[in-house]
Amino acid sequence: MKIEQRLADLGITLPPSGRPAGTYVRARRSGNLIHISGTGPAAGIKAHRGKYGQDLAAEDGYEAARTAGLQILADLKNAVGDLDRVKGVVRSLGMVNAVPEFTDHIRIMNGCSDLFVQVFGEEAGKGARSTVGMGSLPGNISIEIEMTFEVE
Amino acid sequence: MKIEQRLADLGITLPPSGRPAGTYVRARRSGNLIHISGTGPAAGIKAHRGKYGQDLAAEDGYEAARTAGLQILADLKNAVGDLDRVKGVVRSLGMVNAVPEFTDHIRIMNGCSDLFVQVFGEEAGKGARSTVGMGSLPGNISIEIEMTFEVE
Amino acid sequence: MKIEQRLADLGITLPPSGRPAGTYVRARRSGNLIHISGTGPAAGIKAHRGKYGQDLAAEDGYEAARTAGLQILADLKNAVGDLDRVKGVVRSLGMVNAVPEFTDHIRIMNGCSDLFVQVFGEEAGKGARSTVGMGSLPGNISIEIEMTFEVE
Repeated sequence: MKIEQRLADLGITLPPSGRPAGTYVRARRSGNLIHISGTGPAAGIKAHRGKYGQDLAAEDGYEAARTAGLQILADLKNAVGDLDRVKGVVRSLGMVNAVPEFTDHIRIMNGCSDLFVQVFGEEAGKGARSTVGMGSLPGNISIEIEMTFEVE
Repeated sequence: MKIEQRLADLGITLPPSGRPAGTYVRARRSGNLIHISGTGPAAGIKAHRGKYGQDLAAEDGYEAARTAGLQILADLKNAVGDLDRVKGVVRSLGMVNAVPEFTDHIRIMNGCSDLFVQVFGEEAGKGARSTVGMGSLPGNISIEIEMTFEVE
Repeated sequence: MKIEQRLADLGITLPPSGRPAGTYVRARRSGNLIHISGTGPAAGIKAHRGKYGQDLAAEDGYEAARTAGLQILADLKNAVGDLDRVKGVVRSLGMVNAVPEFTDHIRIMNGCSDLFVQVFGEEAGKGARSTVGMGSLPGNISIEIEMTFEVE
């Protein structure tokens, strides 16, 4: 339970596993990969909903992306059983809800990516990543993140 | 020919396999995965082109997404030969053409996802999924969906 | 060094391997797949930044997408060591920075895809592809492309 200890050391309590909002599952395993569905920020935070550059400032986004990452981690744990079986982050797609003029997507998405480095370390915690700006998102959530992990 | 029988029972006739609109192929196999290229709605339907929240209403979208799913199914069949060799849906990315204020992407994309549950069943037919809103799409199609499947 | 010879014949000199702009790596291997992070156009060209349909015309985009492809190729080489070990393109996601009215994404993205056909050939160089329009991109780059390759 090495990763669980790391989470405890970081003071992280994972949320309950998420519930799909439509016809899909929160996580799907295929071979050694686990694909996590697009995930929004925690409901309770300031930057849960809204567009960056209009309703929200870039500095609000780091925490929003981090809470999405915590939800992803919870769903990953639910899918794999034991987080020690996670070999690393393969790929992330960070989709930021923003006005056309917004340019500061990277530091928002780092809120998610930094979490995975803290939890799995510099090597395993960093994957390939794309970060982009969406015209709209379901329910006007401020970011939607999908991730793929390699597991044992 | 279990899946072919299911399609017949559902009254589904698949369209011909699609033609790429640029420098790509409609389907690419890698290992046990088949990746289907981004796919728009059938040309004949009302919601073929346009933006949700402006030209189209959310209720027009379910059928549009379903017709994209039928095209994906046709291209999957063309790639795998026999649909009985499909083990399930791995991942879907539903990209809805919408105005910034649009929030109802989920029920549009369910038109595609529900089709795959009808065809492959509750377990194999549901994969991970992200559904997001695009500022624009090629030729102003109303939705573009890419999917990945696991096959034998 | 078959592919290196092909590059020389095409008069292509690859740029240096890229540097991540945030908490991620430029390339991540998982099994036989290499995932390349979202990549923008070369800094020196006209269409490096801006939105199609507003700051840039569609005809500016082919070269922009091609320079993104060259950067992807450089990072792929850095990840795999020898480009002769690349079996082919699996998947591309072309994300074009555009105004809502823009519809001509396909021919922009072909600038990237045509490069990979020139380098790896008609069969191996063509993968599955989705091309879509983004409301905004980091730093207002004009396109962001992510690709996945199969390697030996």
